[in-house]
Amino acid sequence: MKIKISPAEGKLGILIPGLGAVATTLIAGVEAVKKGISQPIGSLTQMGHIRLGKRTENRNPKINEFVPLAQLNDIVFGGWDVYEDNVYQAASNAKVLESSLLDAVKPALEAIVPMKAAFDQNYAKNLRGTHVKTGTRYELAQQVMEDIQNFKEQNGLDRVVLVWCGSTEIYYEASAIHQSLAAFEQALKDDDKLIAPSMIYAYAALKLGVPFSNGAPNLTVDIPALIELSKLTKTPIAGKDFKTGQTLMKTVLAPGLAARSLGVHGWFSTNILGNRDGLVLDDPDNFKTKEVSKLGVLEDIFKPEDNQELYGNIYHKIRINYYPPHGDNKESWDNIDIFGWLGYKMQIKINFLCRDSILAAPIALDLALFSDMAKRAGMSGIQEWLSFYLKSPQTAEGLHPENDIFKQLIKLENTLRYLMGEDLITHLGLDYYDDMFAQEA
Amino acid sequence: MKIKISPAEGKLGILIPGLGAVATTLIAGVEAVKKGISQPIGSLTQMGHIRLGKRTENRNPKINEFVPLAQLNDIVFGGWDVYEDNVYQAASNAKVLESSLLDAVKPALEAIVPMKAAFDQNYAKNLRGTHVKTGTRYELAQQVMEDIQNFKEQNGLDRVVLVWCGSTEIYYEASAIHQSLAAFEQALKDDDKLIAPSMIYAYAALKLGVPFSNGAPNLTVDIPALIELSKLTKTPIAGKDFKTGQTLMKTVLAPGLAARSLGVHGWFSTNILGNRDGLVLDDPDNFKTKEVSKLGVLEDIFKPEDNQELYGNIYHKIRINYYPPHGDNKESWDNIDIFGWLGYKMQIKINFLCRDSILAAPIALDLALFSDMAKRAGMSGIQEWLSFYLKSPQTAEGLHPENDIFKQLIKLENTLRYLMGEDLITHLGLDYYDDMFAQEA
Amino acid sequence: MKIKISPAEGKLGILIPGLGAVATTLIAGVEAVKKGISQPIGSLTQMGHIRLGKRTENRNPKINEFVPLAQLNDIVFGGWDVYEDNVYQAASNAKVLESSLLDAVKPALEAIVPMKAAFDQNYAKNLRGTHVKTGTRYELAQQVMEDIQNFKEQNGLDRVVLVWCGSTEIYYEASAIHQSLAAFEQALKDDDKLIAPSMIYAYAALKLGVPFSNGAPNLTVDIPALIELSKLTKTPIAGKDFKTGQTLMKTVLAPGLAARSLGVHGWFSTNILGNRDGLVLDDPDNFKTKEVSKLGVLEDIFKPEDNQELYGNIYHKIRINYYPPHGDNKESWDNIDIFGWLGYKMQIKINFLCRDSILAAPIALDLALFSDMAKRAGMSGIQEWLSFYLKSPQTAEGLHPENDIFKQLIKLENTLRYLMGEDLITHLGLDYYDDMFAQEA
Amino acid sequence: MKIKISPAEGKLGILIPGLGAVATTLIAGVEAVKKGISQPIGSLTQMGHIRLGKRTENRNPKINEFVPLAQLNDIVFGGWDVYEDNVYQAASNAKVLESSLLDAVKPALEAIVPMKAAFDQNYAKNLRGTHVKTGTRYELAQQVMEDIQNFKEQNGLDRVVLVWCGSTEIYYEASAIHQSLAAFEQALKDDDKLIAPSMIYAYAALKLGVPFSNGAPNLTVDIPALIELSKLTKTPIAGKDFKTGQTLMKTVLAPGLAARSLGVHGWFSTNILGNRDGLVLDDPDNFKTKEVSKLGVLEDIFKPEDNQELYGNIYHKIRINYYPPHGDNKESWDNIDIFGWLGYKMQIKINFLCRDSILAAPIALDLALFSDMAKRAGMSGIQEWLSFYLKSPQTAEGLHPENDIFKQLIKLENTLRYLMGEDLITHLGLDYYDDMFAQEA
Repeated sequence: MKIKISPAEGKLGILIPGLGAVATTLIAGVEAVKKGISQPIGSLTQMGHIRLGKRTENRNPKINEFVPLAQLNDIVFGGWDVYEDNVYQAASNAKVLESSLLDAVKPALEAIVPMKAAFDQNYAKNLRGTHVKTGTRYELAQQVMEDIQNFKEQNGLDRVVLVWCGSTEIYYEASAIHQSLAAFEQALKDDDKLIAPSMIYAYAALKLGVPFSNGAPNLTVDIPALIELSKLTKTPIAGKDFKTGQTLMKTVLAPGLAARSLGVHGWFSTNILGNRDGLVLDDPDNFKTKEVSKLGVLEDIFKPEDNQELYGNIYHKIRINYYPPHGDNKESWDNIDIFGWLGYKMQIKINFLCRDSILAAPIALDLALFSDMAKRAGMSGIQEWLSFYLKSPQTAEGLHPENDIFKQLIKLENTLRYLMGEDLITHLGLDYYDDMFAQEA
Repeated sequence: MKIKISPAEGKLGILIPGLGAVATTLIAGVEAVKKGISQPIGSLTQMGHIRLGKRTENRNPKINEFVPLAQLNDIVFGGWDVYEDNVYQAASNAKVLESSLLDAVKPALEAIVPMKAAFDQNYAKNLRGTHVKTGTRYELAQQVMEDIQNFKEQNGLDRVVLVWCGSTEIYYEASAIHQSLAAFEQALKDDDKLIAPSMIYAYAALKLGVPFSNGAPNLTVDIPALIELSKLTKTPIAGKDFKTGQTLMKTVLAPGLAARSLGVHGWFSTNILGNRDGLVLDDPDNFKTKEVSKLGVLEDIFKPEDNQELYGNIYHKIRINYYPPHGDNKESWDNIDIFGWLGYKMQIKINFLCRDSILAAPIALDLALFSDMAKRAGMSGIQEWLSFYLKSPQTAEGLHPENDIFKQLIKLENTLRYLMGEDLITHLGLDYYDDMFAQEA
Repeated sequence: MKIKISPAEGKLGILIPGLGAVATTLIAGVEAVKKGISQPIGSLTQMGHIRLGKRTENRNPKINEFVPLAQLNDIVFGGWDVYEDNVYQAASNAKVLESSLLDAVKPALEAIVPMKAAFDQNYAKNLRGTHVKTGTRYELAQQVMEDIQNFKEQNGLDRVVLVWCGSTEIYYEASAIHQSLAAFEQALKDDDKLIAPSMIYAYAALKLGVPFSNGAPNLTVDIPALIELSKLTKTPIAGKDFKTGQTLMKTVLAPGLAARSLGVHGWFSTNILGNRDGLVLDDPDNFKTKEVSKLGVLEDIFKPEDNQELYGNIYHKIRINYYPPHGDNKESWDNIDIFGWLGYKMQIKINFLCRDSILAAPIALDLALFSDMAKRAGMSGIQEWLSFYLKSPQTAEGLHPENDIFKQLIKLENTLRYLMGEDLITHLGLDYYDDMFAQEA
Repeated sequence: MKIKISPAEGKLGILIPGLGAVATTLIAGVEAVKKGISQPIGSLTQMGHIRLGKRTENRNPKINEFVPLAQLNDIVFGGWDVYEDNVYQAASNAKVLESSLLDAVKPALEAIVPMKAAFDQNYAKNLRGTHVKTGTRYELAQQVMEDIQNFKEQNGLDRVVLVWCGSTEIYYEASAIHQSLAAFEQALKDDDKLIAPSMIYAYAALKLGVPFSNGAPNLTVDIPALIELSKLTKTPIAGKDFKTGQTLMKTVLAPGLAARSLGVHGWFSTNILGNRDGLVLDDPDNFKTKEVSKLGVLEDIFKPEDNQELYGNIYHKIRINYYPPHGDNKESWDNIDIFGWLGYKMQIKINFLCRDSILAAPIALDLALFSDMAKRAGMSGIQEWLSFYLKSPQTAEGLHPENDIFKQLIKLENTLRYLMGEDLITHLGLDYYDDMFAQEA
């Protein structure tokens, strides 16, 4: 049985709140790939293969030849920012990509000028936005909806998706106004400060049936009000927080330790980075949002409630340090204190010299393409199968998030197989060994 | 449908060729656990849980409460070695465990005296064995069979398994005499030097229907002759090479990179260790056996044939250095050169301060217990589901080994679920989201 | 010309405010060395040699055979603490030394019971002292003087020195009451809270002509009032802050970079430790004292005022993280961004798995022995030649401290040579090459 | 008293055997500095300052304003190579410097075309030289002398120096023909294969009174025959092996450990690099030359003969691995096992992401400028004061080399002070403390 998916015809608009390092790296990269001068490494939708059937069948198509995704040539980018730099200028400031690459796609980048942002400095104290909309939160939401509609019409688009690439907002939890769509819409009208800027974009998108993915750790669409709206308009949502760098490594390594029943006494993680993200996270309120997102992964993977002797007493500490000499070249150092057989202690040290935006850009692309496909497949609400890309995955109420990147990958791949009517893969594989069971003989 | 498995009644003998650091750490540890003074950390059979059913069912029994494994209290240890030290002395020399722990189980360890080994120094040039059997290879095999039988009778055992914990033999490939049982048995009688000592043990075990697992990278049971014998006597076999330390980390990390379609330019791995294993591997012929075992994992995981742009040109280099100051505290340092979006380069450095025998001992235990259970379940021949524990897994002819530790774990777990008649887990999980598909409404 | 130094006859008392990890490691160690079961590694006075004369003379006596130092057998320990544990109990709690070593010197350690401390919790918020003196600051100083006198008489000592091994106090700067002895003594009588507890000990010691060394970064004797007193009573003083761990490495490495005119963009230093020191430093006010002490070293060594292009723009950041899994095993990780020829960038990463008290104990010993010798040599006031041991060396007013450990070592060694009437060493060494200068022929 | 030094008037030729990565990085760099588009970081002669007089005098002139060195604008480069690429092509192949920098100085680089090399493939098996002279060793020496003379005349030079930047030759020790100038000249005539190519250049230079410095670990000028010649023609010589990367770090760190009397159990050093140097060193015979040069430094610094308990049993192992992904970006990883107070163990790990040629180029420049100055100062024979730049310093017979980089620096600086008639610096500094000695009052 195969799910019916509308074909990816016409143009797809990807609209991005926050045209900073990640967004401009994404846009410049897609333009460079279109021109054939670079490759979309790190993007599962562009580079990844998927195994189908038995190992001996040798069926390993590329993912984008297996499921109906939009083509890169059909993508049109746009977005909002608190600064008025066009994408070429913003990319130059971000210093992620070398100038020779940016120059090769300069006209395409210069053509993308940000729309004014819906912004509230209380949510990002270290940013001084000058290119911002005015009005109550209700009015801002209306303006964003108009922006989306205009963008779609002016560019002759068939479909649009939104991907939040803005900064991390200060820490907040869901309150009464976030509990239902009715309460939320009333709060919009009341210009209630408890509505974060990112929620305004999410609301506007969902209202129009436009898929929304959240690359930052802010709650944003992870509130009952907007989940309700996503069901109502039959729109896919995904969040929270692009899984890059240290947390990516953590959700790779921790499952490895858990697989082998190796115990963990402590996990110390430090980061040094010098980009705008680092500056924003130098503020304790913004850092808290990030910290909460990053801290959760170990607990989910190690399940201390079931494994008290191994993981009941982990000291987990995370530090993010603003360190300008490194720019966007975020670097992490982890010290992990583990113990094995009879409690003997061992240590693992991981030093990751990474590039934050280089890791994030293909995630933003994949979320855009997959959420567009989900919409065409009639999938609505929380897309847990996309948690592969996210530090703090949004799940159905009452359901533990799954942070183990390998389980997330199987979930993603089996979802694609399910959609296309292929057998799910269980890795059982006993059938390769015909006379395995003596008793069956 | 559930597979019928004979209950684990009576005593189980674990016989070990090679009573060195790994074996004595295993034996001392099991004795300490029996006395309640230590815990079998790192053993999936003793510490691990397995999820059954849907996530919301919260069924996570311990593995040894789910499948019928032998109890630690029913285990009796024995073995062979080229030195005549009893296990207490050998454990003291190995300097893996602290003397206070060894002293707490001293009587039990002193009682285990090695039987004379079937040995050929050509296969381990840096070892000077003095406690060895004499005779042709055929006679040695007969003597080992007698050893097994005697051990079983003298200890009133119900069942026996063998786990090879001896040193790495020099590099050799399968030749004509290894291609069929008939040719092999003829070669035994001819005292053909192409039969390695480890094959003598394997032959003796399989002939008696005793499961055999191979913790070293030597071919041993990974030859057509002995696979044929294992089918004939309906006996499970597993190999090769306990997956510890650096390769363990590699099969954790490489799947993480592949999951995200991140490219790899180079992977440099160096090791420093100062135990007997390090001494043996200081000989180039023995190192080659190990190197071949260790090199293969990346190729299998990255599948360069399918992913030319990402993994078509990996420079993979492995070094093992004998470094006495570290003793058994093997330490590895890896430098991994990766590339992401648009080809931008990043680096990962991993420094693992590990303890070789501490990681290997619980693997030896699990292989013993699982291979015993497999025998009782009527499973014969290659047990690919145990490749989770092995650096260079043995598979059916024509089948690529699977080195990704997470696929190996799913295979192991789904095998257990299959044996016990539980649903296999696919991580699809769409059913947690009732009205996911708009089109179904 | 040789300086006259009174012989080290009779017994020397070493009195220590703060019988925590460092002090108990020192005391237990000296007792173990006396019994011949251990060695005083890391102590220059006990293990170090000094070259005398030309290289070809091969004169390299041990330092304690060259200058007249007190013998370890003549040392008697005592001290003060805010907890009433004897040294055996305190050493056991500190978990630095293994219990078998402590047990071997148990009687000697149990015999050392702390005197009540002069304490003010405002200076160490995370400590809850219960074993403390009462009275005004003036009365506390009198009590400490009585303690010293009593200790000297009861133990039949010839001489006494004090070494501060207490915790880091909160950050404070010198104020009016610290500017002269008269003002300081008036403030004592006024029970002025600006007088820190450590100053009370220092005052009491100097008043009695007892040398005082300061192992913590607090100002303590680094104020005009106490310098004045030290000159008045002809008493040596030394401070501040034992140079161990990361800063030790920094003052080794930074001179190496400066030697080669390699530039530095940034230096990020993080520490994880789980002992009482780590707990105290978790309070920001106490951390600030430490941070100021640690930050200064790079500036002094790199002299940005003279080397603007190389060191004019260093981003230097230091973090200390309380991390209980490591106990006293302080670990540091440094990332150093350097640049060379034509500005090309390079990186150095240093991971130091150190033991804080193991590095500090021999420093405390050396400072005690050298300050005792200085007293006997008639040296008074600031002993800059002991800055080799200190993170934040005290110097004459107007004089830049010298933090380069190699210049500090030459200063120390040439001071010893000077005292003993040996030639100072300049490493010129042209005289090994007789006919070096053509023009002289 | 000041030494008379002829002024650095006119032009200085720097002739380099081996126009590979180091030489082309040097030449391109000097040209870029001349044009004002880059800075000679890492060069003590260009960037370094020297303290004169007392600390309070604040006299810290730049070294090149203190002693009479040739100006960069007066330098003319030339050289020999086994390939015929001009310096622009060779620099492009070396991939050390970015192409934008090379293009900025392209005409100057293209103008430098190598002369044919005096080569013998037996001394560098992995090199396939095509641009080589023919003739007996005697004839080759004559040709090199003619090359030098011609170069001097054609460029209107006042003076010339040679700096060997060629590859490491295979390992060889001094034999009978190297023991006297007479024997050496006879062997030249006999075309004796025991004369290495590098010796032919050295002989030719010294014969003409041209200073010769050796940047590789080959013996070259470190043989009695050529020392004799250097005295005869009153010519300075210096060698062996530019001190960069790991050994640079080692001679920085080891003195730090020795300063504090910290013991060392083991020192494991591994390197990965992918340039031509790495390719040559992949041959065991060439590696041996390098290994001997690198191994010696610890022994000299730690002096195990005097410090048996601390350094009597160091396990020192060095590995160099050819690893193409890194190109010229040589990377080292060191694990150092140290022990402190009472023998407690600690570890230091150093990961140096360095750039080989970037570190070597300024050394080659400094050796050229200082050896030219030495010639003008009438200094002949071994210049031990230049050992600061060298891994395996050449010294007078019977004299232990000094590898501690800080003693080497003092030697260099005090030599400069001596030449210019300034006070030598001893760091005693007691005179900053006027009334230090009570006994003097």
